Amino acid sequence: MADEALFQFLHNELIQYVYKSAEHGEMENGRCITKLENMGFRVGQGLIERFTRDTARFKDELDVMKFVCKDFWTSVFKKQIDNLRTNHQGIYVLQDNKFRLLTQLSAGKQYLEHAPKYLAFTCGLVRGGLANLGVKSIVTAEVSVMPACKFQVMIQKM
Amino acid sequence: MADEALFQFLHNELIQYVYKSAEHGEMENGRCITKLENMGFRVGQGLIERFTRDTARFKDELDVMKFVCKDFWTSVFKKQIDNLRTNHQGIYVLQDNKFRLLTQLSAGKQYLEHAPKYLAFTCGLVRGGLANLGVKSIVTAEVSVMPACKFQVMIQKM
Repeated sequence: MADEALFQFLHNELIQYVYKSAEHGEMENGRCITKLENMGFRVGQGLIERFTRDTARFKDELDVMKFVCKDFWTSVFKKQIDNLRTNHQGIYVLQDNKFRLLTQLSAGKQYLEHAPKYLAFTCGLVRGGLANLGVKSIVTAEVSVMPACKFQVMIQKM
Repeated sequence: MADEALFQFLHNELIQYVYKSAEHGEMENGRCITKLENMGFRVGQGLIERFTRDTARFKDELDVMKFVCKDFWTSVFKKQIDNLRTNHQGIYVLQDNKFRLLTQLSAGKQYLEHAPKYLAFTCGLVRGGLANLGVKSIVTAEVSVMPACKFQVMIQKM
């Protein structure tokens, strides 16, 4: 519980700082989201390097995705992804029914508009992790009912 | 190990971001250090609130300091403070012989000048934690040989 709290508080500070230090207009055009995403990317790169140090080589792309949904997610968010779906053509949807970084926000629609800033870092985290495993991707997130959340990973063929 | 890594990477991103987004002159006059310290303060406040939810009431100031050195430090840095000293007049010195956030930096004197930015957040963390336990203080840090580090807590009598 302690570790989670530390991560959550630090994550909140990061969001607040990025938004507070934003220059005029940056907030509107999504620059803050990009910054948070980039930070997540670098953290994801670093983390996956540590986590996979002693793991066996991955069989294929799906194997990589499963690792992200289970081991990677558990170590960061203390739970697994609840549902992984794919169209077998390079699109994966990772569903977390109780996404840790949204549980602090009230459920309901009141704060739905604030959800994107709480998801940007994690989108980057996934993208960075995958990138370091040789899988180039675009990651977006979507919330319909808090605190459930879907991350869509579109693999970029190289 | 995973949790530590997450905290370390996030902490690094925070430092980099604060320094990168600093305006001209802010770096020189210590504004960045202050910002990091303030973030640490708020995180410390939040954390101590969680940690002490189920603990017994503290006997006195020394009892509070011991809690910070043991439970609080362990949950954040995965080890206890190695040495706690006090002059019994409101000054406490907390020594960590292998401070987690400095172990990534090379030992030796080469990067000694960069140490302050890796300590500011933690100074705030301690100050915030103590503040929420009713102990007002000024916390400074000092490094002589990396990665050992001393935090000096000066209690402000109210």
